[in-house]
Amino acid sequence: MTDINDVLNQADQNLPAAIDRLFEFLRIRSISTDPAFKQDCRDAADWLVADLAQIGFDAKRHDTPGHPMVVASSDTDTTPSSSGSPHFLFYGHYDVQPVDPLELWSRDPFDPAIEEVAGNKIIRARGAADDKGQLMTFVEACRVWQQVRGQLPCKLTLFFEGEEESGSPSLIPFMQSRQELLKADLAMVCDTGMWNSETPAISTMLRGMVGEEITITGPSRDLHSGMYGGPCINPIRVMTKILGELQAEDGTVQLPGFYEGVEELPANIKDQWASLDFNEQAFLGDVGLSIPAGESGYSVLEQIWSRPTCEINGISGGYTGEGFKTVLPSIAVAKLSFRLVGNQDPEKIADTLHQFVEDRLPADCSVSFKSKDGSKAIVMPVDGEAFQKAQQALSAEWNTDAVYAGCGGSIPVVGHIKEILGMDSLLIGFGLDDDAIHSPNEKYDLQSFSKGIRSWIRVLDSLT
Amino acid sequence: MTDINDVLNQADQNLPAAIDRLFEFLRIRSISTDPAFKQDCRDAADWLVADLAQIGFDAKRHDTPGHPMVVASSDTDTTPSSSGSPHFLFYGHYDVQPVDPLELWSRDPFDPAIEEVAGNKIIRARGAADDKGQLMTFVEACRVWQQVRGQLPCKLTLFFEGEEESGSPSLIPFMQSRQELLKADLAMVCDTGMWNSETPAISTMLRGMVGEEITITGPSRDLHSGMYGGPCINPIRVMTKILGELQAEDGTVQLPGFYEGVEELPANIKDQWASLDFNEQAFLGDVGLSIPAGESGYSVLEQIWSRPTCEINGISGGYTGEGFKTVLPSIAVAKLSFRLVGNQDPEKIADTLHQFVEDRLPADCSVSFKSKDGSKAIVMPVDGEAFQKAQQALSAEWNTDAVYAGCGGSIPVVGHIKEILGMDSLLIGFGLDDDAIHSPNEKYDLQSFSKGIRSWIRVLDSLT
Repeated sequence: MTDINDVLNQADQNLPAAIDRLFEFLRIRSISTDPAFKQDCRDAADWLVADLAQIGFDAKRHDTPGHPMVVASSDTDTTPSSSGSPHFLFYGHYDVQPVDPLELWSRDPFDPAIEEVAGNKIIRARGAADDKGQLMTFVEACRVWQQVRGQLPCKLTLFFEGEEESGSPSLIPFMQSRQELLKADLAMVCDTGMWNSETPAISTMLRGMVGEEITITGPSRDLHSGMYGGPCINPIRVMTKILGELQAEDGTVQLPGFYEGVEELPANIKDQWASLDFNEQAFLGDVGLSIPAGESGYSVLEQIWSRPTCEINGISGGYTGEGFKTVLPSIAVAKLSFRLVGNQDPEKIADTLHQFVEDRLPADCSVSFKSKDGSKAIVMPVDGEAFQKAQQALSAEWNTDAVYAGCGGSIPVVGHIKEILGMDSLLIGFGLDDDAIHSPNEKYDLQSFSKGIRSWIRVLDSLT
Repeated sequence: MTDINDVLNQADQNLPAAIDRLFEFLRIRSISTDPAFKQDCRDAADWLVADLAQIGFDAKRHDTPGHPMVVASSDTDTTPSSSGSPHFLFYGHYDVQPVDPLELWSRDPFDPAIEEVAGNKIIRARGAADDKGQLMTFVEACRVWQQVRGQLPCKLTLFFEGEEESGSPSLIPFMQSRQELLKADLAMVCDTGMWNSETPAISTMLRGMVGEEITITGPSRDLHSGMYGGPCINPIRVMTKILGELQAEDGTVQLPGFYEGVEELPANIKDQWASLDFNEQAFLGDVGLSIPAGESGYSVLEQIWSRPTCEINGISGGYTGEGFKTVLPSIAVAKLSFRLVGNQDPEKIADTLHQFVEDRLPADCSVSFKSKDGSKAIVMPVDGEAFQKAQQALSAEWNTDAVYAGCGGSIPVVGHIKEILGMDSLLIGFGLDDDAIHSPNEKYDLQSFSKGIRSWIRVLDSLT
């Protein structure tokens, strides 16, 4: 570690300009899951290419059958020539979640602003935390380093995708065909959270995921429930019956073999987590709840970090507008996701779900499935030198010990980075539990942004 | 019965003009359940007032807190003066169902046209069968009678509401406060169907209804299912679990006491229904099904006409758009309707449903209900003289015995007519099973319209 106060001071000087740049980026409506926003996603990619070109990167947009990738490599002018210099791959995503229900937002989700909430400055916008604000902490760290030192801290490749919120259909083919472009010594990802607003974290366990959309069809068209109700099967009745059997009262998932590959948490990790000042009642109370609803016998932290789940993310069928309509619908649709841990096999779980539904389907109904690419759970080697140095750098910036944490969410790219590129990932992020990242009124604390930039400066310094 | 060939012949002459008038009426977008169409409903009421004024009625629009009523009384100039002349009340509704999903319509639902389908001429439009086309059969019968004979067949009061498809909130208060205006000897209603395309029917059993919307709330806001899934209760999971328990595998409804007041069908009616040429496989096959899904041990006709049901008419929660969104939603909503028979008590069943849900609700969730006014089932006295004469008149027009039928749907006004005005109702309608009345591509057979007009001429003749 060297004296990097010059770089850190310059980062503080640059903050207003960095916020302006982030706001420009946040104004681009890059909702990847809705085809109506295809051009906006391309605009976001182009914005990144133009910005990275200004700070010593050879940046290109790579078109795909879906939304484009952006890859930016530090060029020879800006990269230290020392042969011992490491090479890092930084990953982020420029696409964002849909914004509905729009009426619950306190402002236009794509008109970012700094608001003061309970004395705390926040950046309010869709994507502020997930992931535009987070990825820009790394970009701004590179910018200021290059500005102060005349070159980047080491060889860097920046890799941004635009399909993270819509199942990343182009990611695996792209990574497979561009391994030489993307390979480095270690990956860095900024898409996770802090332990709390004052304590940074390195996420070392990530749950995997399986996503499945189920469509059950009964009658060939919508019917009048008075004229046909009784003898004609109602697909909503079938759907609710089947989904109602998916989980037992004690929270356990009823798919046969679902818990194969799920291991009990090692005692030392269990102890470490138990020693964290995690307030279950505050966590639940913050979202209007009081009783843990997951598997009984596990702490809330274990239910989020180390236990698998089944969630129904969406359901629809029949008439859902204002008032009543006595329709007996032709179809019912549900979107499910399973969070996986340990060695649970995503494909096997998808197959088991299909069988579970088919086994319970009345002969007169049909079912179809749409699958989202699954991902296995991941555990990082926290004993390695890079993880320890990064932990110390974070602790220095925040003046408190950084935590090795789990993460309830899934970041499938981390699995692909391991499998396709053979690299571990250093998962450092500055999100907070109340960032509302997939909800109305998403925000990112201004401190997450400003100290996030400073944190990456320190981490890069510690590893080079 | 007199010689009414003069009137019938004139009805045939008038048909093209009658179709033009019906098309004008069908172009009015009188969707009562959606507040956006409030003015259209008013326009439909005004259209009726103007039309009825032209054929010897003293017609007025009566505004209500919801959509207006129309009441038209035959004036002294056009009513026979004989003291023995009866007085009939005719009821219909000018409002129509919503049209979604619009993309499944083969043409604009409010741009009516005559189409030829398999050699059969049909009128395609929302409301063609339910109920604009049907109510106009009676209006056109009055028009032609007045034209040919210089006066109406007897004293008539026509009563049209605009809230039938949205729970009729203004109906009971209006009927209660205008009893003198509406009272007559017998009511006539044209909102039911034929036995088949060649066989007319008088509906003498109508199922009642209870409508309930259930909203279950879990977390106070939408959450990320990765970050919160497991410990935080998912209201869709709760909703599907509860709804999944509402019906047993054999189709029986599991609400305690639900079958109180349900009587087995009398043997003679059961025999009459069994002797009808009802083709269960064709009925189900027409809508892509093959296996009766109602209570086992009952024929399909019994499942529709004489057995109670529970249907989920709509369900929604979480993300329901294209693609995936890993949300753990704050609320889930379901709309249910129960069809009632015999002496089932609508209020008691609503209360029992509330209790059923509350008994199964996790302590961390809350529930709210919205109720639609319930109605009891109705059985008409088919042995009365008016019913027998009308049956003979219908048989003469269609050249085959008219059937005394049940009806799966609910027509709450028939109950109100009995309770508030003390009258029985003669339910004659010309709809067919394939009219798709609450679905995309609603139609009304041209023959239903033309012979419907002729049928009312004969029925009015037989009763005066």
